[in-house]
Amino acid sequence: MATVTTRTVAYPADGMTMVGHLALPSGAGPRPAVLLGPEGMGLSDVERRRADALAESGYVALAFDLHGGRYLGAPEEMLARCTPLLADPDRLRGIGRAALDVLRAEPRTDPDRVAAIGYGTGGAIALELGREGVDLRAIGTVNALTTGRPGEAARIRCPVWAGVGSEDPIMSAAQREAFTAEMQAAGVDWRLVVYGGALHAFHHPPVDHATVPGVGYHPRHARRAWRDVLDLLDECLPIAE
Amino acid sequence: MATVTTRTVAYPADGMTMVGHLALPSGAGPRPAVLLGPEGMGLSDVERRRADALAESGYVALAFDLHGGRYLGAPEEMLARCTPLLADPDRLRGIGRAALDVLRAEPRTDPDRVAAIGYGTGGAIALELGREGVDLRAIGTVNALTTGRPGEAARIRCPVWAGVGSEDPIMSAAQREAFTAEMQAAGVDWRLVVYGGALHAFHHPPVDHATVPGVGYHPRHARRAWRDVLDLLDECLPIAE
Repeated sequence: MATVTTRTVAYPADGMTMVGHLALPSGAGPRPAVLLGPEGMGLSDVERRRADALAESGYVALAFDLHGGRYLGAPEEMLARCTPLLADPDRLRGIGRAALDVLRAEPRTDPDRVAAIGYGTGGAIALELGREGVDLRAIGTVNALTTGRPGEAARIRCPVWAGVGSEDPIMSAAQREAFTAEMQAAGVDWRLVVYGGALHAFHHPPVDHATVPGVGYHPRHARRAWRDVLDLLDECLPIAE
Repeated sequence: MATVTTRTVAYPADGMTMVGHLALPSGAGPRPAVLLGPEGMGLSDVERRRADALAESGYVALAFDLHGGRYLGAPEEMLARCTPLLADPDRLRGIGRAALDVLRAEPRTDPDRVAAIGYGTGGAIALELGREGVDLRAIGTVNALTTGRPGEAARIRCPVWAGVGSEDPIMSAAQREAFTAEMQAAGVDWRLVVYGGALHAFHHPPVDHATVPGVGYHPRHARRAWRDVLDLLDECLPIAE
């Protein structure tokens, strides 16, 4: 197994001090890089370990922070912060850009080869970076099929891969339809995977948060969604040692 | 590259003599096996080469025949044969079972580890084998999201992976919905990938058939759909040398 170096990185965004988890692959020289955005609860070991796994595969990976170093395990607190955030593309982009700046400033990062992968609120951030016109090689979003401001999706110039649970009550069939219609109308190269029977946040093993209706872990689909993400990166950000 | 042995196999089905393409992996001893069903036009080199690729990966693979050794490049002829076929689950199953018998009779096949993958009419056959209760390890279907007789989907005991082009006019959104509802109601472990912008038969490079409205090759999604099929096989039929 390849040696991975990790570092906690602090940086300002959204009026807070964010605390991200940067994972570097072994070897030297620039590598393709991945921005990894967490669910609305915030950064947890789930995303930190995924960043480490990406670094084992040869990527520089930054699991970024949403809430100034805090994990919002209480649904009310999470919703109180994320609901206005999700309604404000500029704030989402600000949080994403700040993380992207950290990732690009890392000497091991090849700044021309960056992908953005996100889950829930982190996925909405990945999509908003694309709609802002940020130069990304791939966008992956799990259970955030959020639509954007009219016309802005046309700025997305990389493949978009999206995954969602079929039984996710937060991401309704109508919302999925609106999202794919937006991508299609904008001429985006997109794909959508519907994981049968899965609920919201199906990819996320339980951490220390309360049980929330409509949210549930689905280990089998979680493994598949991770493999789908790795396939996307392999296609768009091949590791050439 | 592994050495692959291929053989043309003739067998009776649907009142005809079918002519399939069997591909065997190098080595000795039983291997997991894949039934590979073609589009409605029938068996072509596209499916023969896919069977060969599967054999290179270590599977026994049978690209099976639909039309007694003929390729129906004329849309009218194809529709005249496939329309009644697709309306008759028993005939579809008969064609699939006959191919499965050939595959299972091959000494290199591990008869307990068989998957059925199909495209178009071949996909409908793969699904009908599942609905008949045939013991399969995985079912994969591309642009055939066909529904079955009430209640029979509950006999499907393996993962079902389905792929479809978002702009496929033959496989409408309503049909996709009906298919996933059937799978979900039956408790099947299912997934659906919607390939954005792709038409019907997007995975199939042009052969010698006429241009048909709503049908079109999409090389990028074709590569992705093939990788998705390989991932399904890797998950459900791992090659343990």
